[in-house]
Amino acid sequence: ATGGEVVLSLERLSKVLEVDAPGRTLRCQAGATVEQVIDAAAAVGLLYPVDFAAKGSAQIGGTLATNAGGVRVIRYGSTRSWVLGLRVVLADGAVVDVGRPVLKDNTGYDLRQLFVGSEGTLGVIVEATLRLTVPPAGAVVALCALPDLGAVLDLFARVQGDHLQIGAFECFDEGCLRHVRRHRGEAEGGPLAVPGPWYALVEVEVPWPGDAAREATVDRVVEVLAQAQDAGVVGDATVAMSGAQARQLWALREDISESLHPQGPHKSDVTVPLSKLPTFVPRWQQAVARAIPGAEARVFGHVGDGNLHLNVLPPPAAPRAEFLAACEALDDVTYAMVRDVAGSISAEHGVGLLKRRHLPFSRSARELAIMAAIKAALDPAGVFNPGKLLPEPGAVPEG
Amino acid sequence: ATGGEVVLSLERLSKVLEVDAPGRTLRCQAGATVEQVIDAAAAVGLLYPVDFAAKGSAQIGGTLATNAGGVRVIRYGSTRSWVLGLRVVLADGAVVDVGRPVLKDNTGYDLRQLFVGSEGTLGVIVEATLRLTVPPAGAVVALCALPDLGAVLDLFARVQGDHLQIGAFECFDEGCLRHVRRHRGEAEGGPLAVPGPWYALVEVEVPWPGDAAREATVDRVVEVLAQAQDAGVVGDATVAMSGAQARQLWALREDISESLHPQGPHKSDVTVPLSKLPTFVPRWQQAVARAIPGAEARVFGHVGDGNLHLNVLPPPAAPRAEFLAACEALDDVTYAMVRDVAGSISAEHGVGLLKRRHLPFSRSARELAIMAAIKAALDPAGVFNPGKLLPEPGAVPEG
Repeated sequence: ATGGEVVLSLERLSKVLEVDAPGRTLRCQAGATVEQVIDAAAAVGLLYPVDFAAKGSAQIGGTLATNAGGVRVIRYGSTRSWVLGLRVVLADGAVVDVGRPVLKDNTGYDLRQLFVGSEGTLGVIVEATLRLTVPPAGAVVALCALPDLGAVLDLFARVQGDHLQIGAFECFDEGCLRHVRRHRGEAEGGPLAVPGPWYALVEVEVPWPGDAAREATVDRVVEVLAQAQDAGVVGDATVAMSGAQARQLWALREDISESLHPQGPHKSDVTVPLSKLPTFVPRWQQAVARAIPGAEARVFGHVGDGNLHLNVLPPPAAPRAEFLAACEALDDVTYAMVRDVAGSISAEHGVGLLKRRHLPFSRSARELAIMAAIKAALDPAGVFNPGKLLPEPGAVPEG
Repeated sequence: ATGGEVVLSLERLSKVLEVDAPGRTLRCQAGATVEQVIDAAAAVGLLYPVDFAAKGSAQIGGTLATNAGGVRVIRYGSTRSWVLGLRVVLADGAVVDVGRPVLKDNTGYDLRQLFVGSEGTLGVIVEATLRLTVPPAGAVVALCALPDLGAVLDLFARVQGDHLQIGAFECFDEGCLRHVRRHRGEAEGGPLAVPGPWYALVEVEVPWPGDAAREATVDRVVEVLAQAQDAGVVGDATVAMSGAQARQLWALREDISESLHPQGPHKSDVTVPLSKLPTFVPRWQQAVARAIPGAEARVFGHVGDGNLHLNVLPPPAAPRAEFLAACEALDDVTYAMVRDVAGSISAEHGVGLLKRRHLPFSRSARELAIMAAIKAALDPAGVFNPGKLLPEPGAVPEG
């Protein structure tokens, strides 16, 4: 904000340096894209399981600095779970290697996990050694219509409790589906005879290759869904019978963000403890209605890990500046609601500049003081990402 | 070491405070034992998957401070993977909560992971919120005899590559088995017609309940073992056909430590990258033979994650002081070998006092400096665990 800032691009540090297939590790430079890493792993039959829409452009270094999440966190954890080692350039120019290509290493403070998610404020990650895994043998995908979020959670518990290996468990509301269809130029309606108002997209992994395992998995999924239907938890459901059908169901979820974009939505990315989801969402929708009459409050996200993407669409013909000002005030309400259920004001998108003001809603004054002390210890002159992540002392509202 | 030290027991902070079954979290005080936590989770049909022999006496706080591992790390990760939140007493007496009961939280530095594994040098963990999971529907256990460690790794790759969900993958050498049988007062020989010289204990999870899934899993395991036998990878193998048989096979592995104990072994706990295991072990055995002629070098461990427990048994009638002095010199050799393969000198037992001298074999001078800076930032007067973990500046050999 003082001018004189330097933007550092690692775009040309773009090499995948080494893939150790038996050891299931991959070493790459920070500017390699997530897609490059996924492709290099796939070339030896392995999987780098952090997967999200922007993988073609997102660089590994950025995903490490922000601990990127995505649709597979419920199954595989976030980026943090897949980091074995990092090479980091420190504030004085020294290059330090933290971690090593092994799973077990209890030799003092875990410095890797300190750099992961630090949003570039402690050092520049220039190289990473990542863990890989075996890709699933297959997947069964189902789309369900459900009466409310309590039912979505009930279904989630049923699928998990049935020992089905969940690969993803996403949800979205009826309005999201409507926007997707409108954006595509499709007629009203949807893939299910009995519509929402809530939808859950469930992906379950097949335990091993072969038709028998796939059929057994489909049978179990169908049985769980039928039982949930009998219990009034699921209104209607469809199980994809081909890869093409599965991709069509996934596209309904994946196209939401793009479909809402033309409306100029105001977005939040929060985590709410699962048990609080059913009460949190209607209260938040009420808060939106009070704060911005006529606005549309749309909800989708990775419900399996409590991560909701909250979208406020401006009322028709609302002046932009007025809408944005109202959203800024709404943020105070939203993040206070998140704080009150012990949730997180940033599930996977990080803090950066936009959420810096609200960081005290998720982190206590003492936690912020510890972060500041660590920042001072590693970057005393404050050369890395000045003004990002850590709030200015005294410049924050009461969390 | 200066006298005047205070030992703090959290034994009476022993309550499991809350189990949230739908949310799959458990909150407990730090003095609760791991077994208490496992039992409280099991009471609602859930699993706390960190499991090791000392669970009946090990307190959760200690396992967090040391990032305890065990036999399930290959499947479930170490303690670090199961921590959602911590309540920590800082050096000035302030109580701080770090983390929260949600899976996704990208709001700045991950302070939880800084306290986990810090061996009590940064604060006193007094309460924890832990993640729980669904227990496996069942398990198939097999014991295999193999010609060498390369074959053990080959088998590991075959089982993993076949999409079997490994619950544990342990190994031990023939001498370990001999000591177990002798300690029990059993005759020479073993459970397999064709003996070692290496043994792998493989546990594979059954994907869901019911006889069909169990039988399908057994069939797959038998097929993988038969193929490995045809390829000369496995010499002989047995698959447990009952829970009692499975427990008998597990006991062969679990009794090793106790069986070696009367011999007064010198122990190391290292991680070696998987690809280096087959060359590392014979070289280490040679190093033992050179350093302590007549000593027995025994190896067992969690081969799936590269974690070996190296045991040196003293030669018959060797004077104790002489043996220990030789072992101290041997440590320099062992840990240099570990360093040279980019392994870890402490896989799961931590550093404490004993490995402090050798910490530079796994962590660089710059890493140690960062740790010291973090220690100084959080505990400037050095009240927590003085003299542990971090080496005295200048008092360490060249790593």
